[in-house]
Amino acid sequence: MIGIFDSGVGGLTVTKEILKKFPQDQIIYFGDTARLPYGTKGADFVIEYSEKITGWLLKKDAKIIVIACNTSSAWASAYLRNAHKNTPIFDMITSATKDVVASTKNKRIGIIGTPGTIESGAWEKSIKATDPSIKIYSEACPLFVPLVEMGFVRGPVTEKVAKEYLKKIKAKNVDVLVLACTHYPLLESVIKKIMGKKVKIINPAEAAAKEIKTFLEKNPEIEKEIKKGVAHEFYFSDKPYNLEKITKLCLNKKINPIIKDPFNGTNL
Amino acid sequence: MIGIFDSGVGGLTVTKEILKKFPQDQIIYFGDTARLPYGTKGADFVIEYSEKITGWLLKKDAKIIVIACNTSSAWASAYLRNAHKNTPIFDMITSATKDVVASTKNKRIGIIGTPGTIESGAWEKSIKATDPSIKIYSEACPLFVPLVEMGFVRGPVTEKVAKEYLKKIKAKNVDVLVLACTHYPLLESVIKKIMGKKVKIINPAEAAAKEIKTFLEKNPEIEKEIKKGVAHEFYFSDKPYNLEKITKLCLNKKINPIIKDPFNGTNL
Repeated sequence: MIGIFDSGVGGLTVTKEILKKFPQDQIIYFGDTARLPYGTKGADFVIEYSEKITGWLLKKDAKIIVIACNTSSAWASAYLRNAHKNTPIFDMITSATKDVVASTKNKRIGIIGTPGTIESGAWEKSIKATDPSIKIYSEACPLFVPLVEMGFVRGPVTEKVAKEYLKKIKAKNVDVLVLACTHYPLLESVIKKIMGKKVKIINPAEAAAKEIKTFLEKNPEIEKEIKKGVAHEFYFSDKPYNLEKITKLCLNKKINPIIKDPFNGTNL
Repeated sequence: MIGIFDSGVGGLTVTKEILKKFPQDQIIYFGDTARLPYGTKGADFVIEYSEKITGWLLKKDAKIIVIACNTSSAWASAYLRNAHKNTPIFDMITSATKDVVASTKNKRIGIIGTPGTIESGAWEKSIKATDPSIKIYSEACPLFVPLVEMGFVRGPVTEKVAKEYLKKIKAKNVDVLVLACTHYPLLESVIKKIMGKKVKIINPAEAAAKEIKTFLEKNPEIEKEIKKGVAHEFYFSDKPYNLEKITKLCLNKKINPIIKDPFNGTNL
C-alpha cells in the first residue's frame, strides 16, 4: 500500500492527487487528529510524531511513505530518510521544488504555509538550492487551517482573512504562489480571486504524485507489492471534526474512517 | 498549590480571576498545548486527558483542582469527581450556573463555546436543573479559539467572524451571554460591541474564583497547605504558540513556562 500521513484531514487533498494517478493502488492514510495542528507546534514534537507514524505505517505494510503534511515535510523529512534508508519517502517540498522553480518567469515566488513550515525556511532553502537568484516572499497564514476545518472554504469571512494574509505577497508582484499546506488547495478559488489570473497557483501534491508515478514505473516490483492491498484504509487518531464535509470536498465520496490512536497505550 | 488545567493557554484567563482573589496563593498550571484544541475532539479523548492531567497535578501537590477548560468541564467533571472523591474539584459550569441564572431578567440566555462544549449540552442541563423555565440559545464558535491564539483579539476579521456567530443568538433577544470557553474573555470587547449594552456578558471564571474563595474560607487547613507552594509554576505539554502576547493580555506580565509532556514517555 501507499502510506500517506498528515496532521489531520488536510492530507486528503494529497490523497486525491495520488488517486488520480494511481486509481488501481491501495492507500493507507493516517491523520493525527489527536495532536493536530502540527503547524503551530515545535520541531521536536513534529519529528517525534512523524517518526512514530512512519514506523506504524511500515508495520501496516506500507511500501512507500508520502509525507503529505508540509510542516512534517519541513521539519522531519531529512530525519525520516535517515532513519529509514531502505524505504522510499516522498515529501511535498523535495517533490515540488523543480516544478515551482520552472514555473516562475520573473523569479519572484510567494510561499504560504503554517507558522511551522514558514519558520523552518525549508521551502526557501530548497528553492534557493536550485536557483539562488530567485526572490522568495513567504507568509504564515495560521487561520487558514481552522477556516478549512470549520468548513469555511469560501464566503466573506474567508475572503477577509485571505486578503489580510496575501496583501504583502501580492504587493511583491510574484508570478507563482505555492500552497505549502495540505489544507490550502481547498481555499484555491478564494486565493486565486485575490491573487489574480496572472499568478500561477501551485499545489505541491500534483508534483509529488507525478514523482511517485515516475518512481514506481522504474520500480515495478514495489508497484506490484502496493497492488496487493485490498482496500483503502483511513485511520485517524481521534474523531475528525467535519470529516464528511472535507472528504466530500477532497475525494467527492464518503470514507469509513477507523478512529484509533496507536501512540496512546493507556485507555480508561 | 491550586492546580489549574486547560487545553492550552486559554485557562490563563481563569488564572487571572483566581489570582485576583488569592494574590497570596500559589498556582500550578498545566496547559495541554501538545493536544489542543479539546473543543473539537471526542468526549473519550477529553475525559482521558483530563484524568491524566488531574492525576499529574495531584502528584505535583495540588490541593484543589480547577478545571478551567469548559470542554473538560462539560465532558469530564463528573468523571473526575467520581475518581477523586477526596479532592475538591471546581469546574466552570457548576460554579457559574447560579450566577448565570440570577442574572437573567427575561429568562433568555445565550451560551457560546467550542463545538464540544455546546454538543455536550452540559450548560443547558445545569441551567435547566436550576430553573426549567429559562430558554437557552447556544452556538458553537469554532473559529474563536484560533483567532485568539493567533492574536486576533480585535479588528475587522474578528468582528466579521463574531457577527456571523452571534447573529442568531442576538436575534433571540437574550439578556445574558455566557462566555463558555476560556479564550472568549479575550474577545469580550468585540462581543460586547456586537451584543449591545443591554446584554450582560458573563465570564464563568469570576464565579469559579468566588466559589473557591468561599470554600477555602470554610476550609482553612486546605488554604494553609496551598500557601506552602513557593512560586507559581506554568507547565505546557508543548511550546505554546503566541504565549508572550496571550500572557500579557491575560496576566499583564511575563511567565517562565516549563515545556514538558508528562504523558509521552518516548522521546527521540
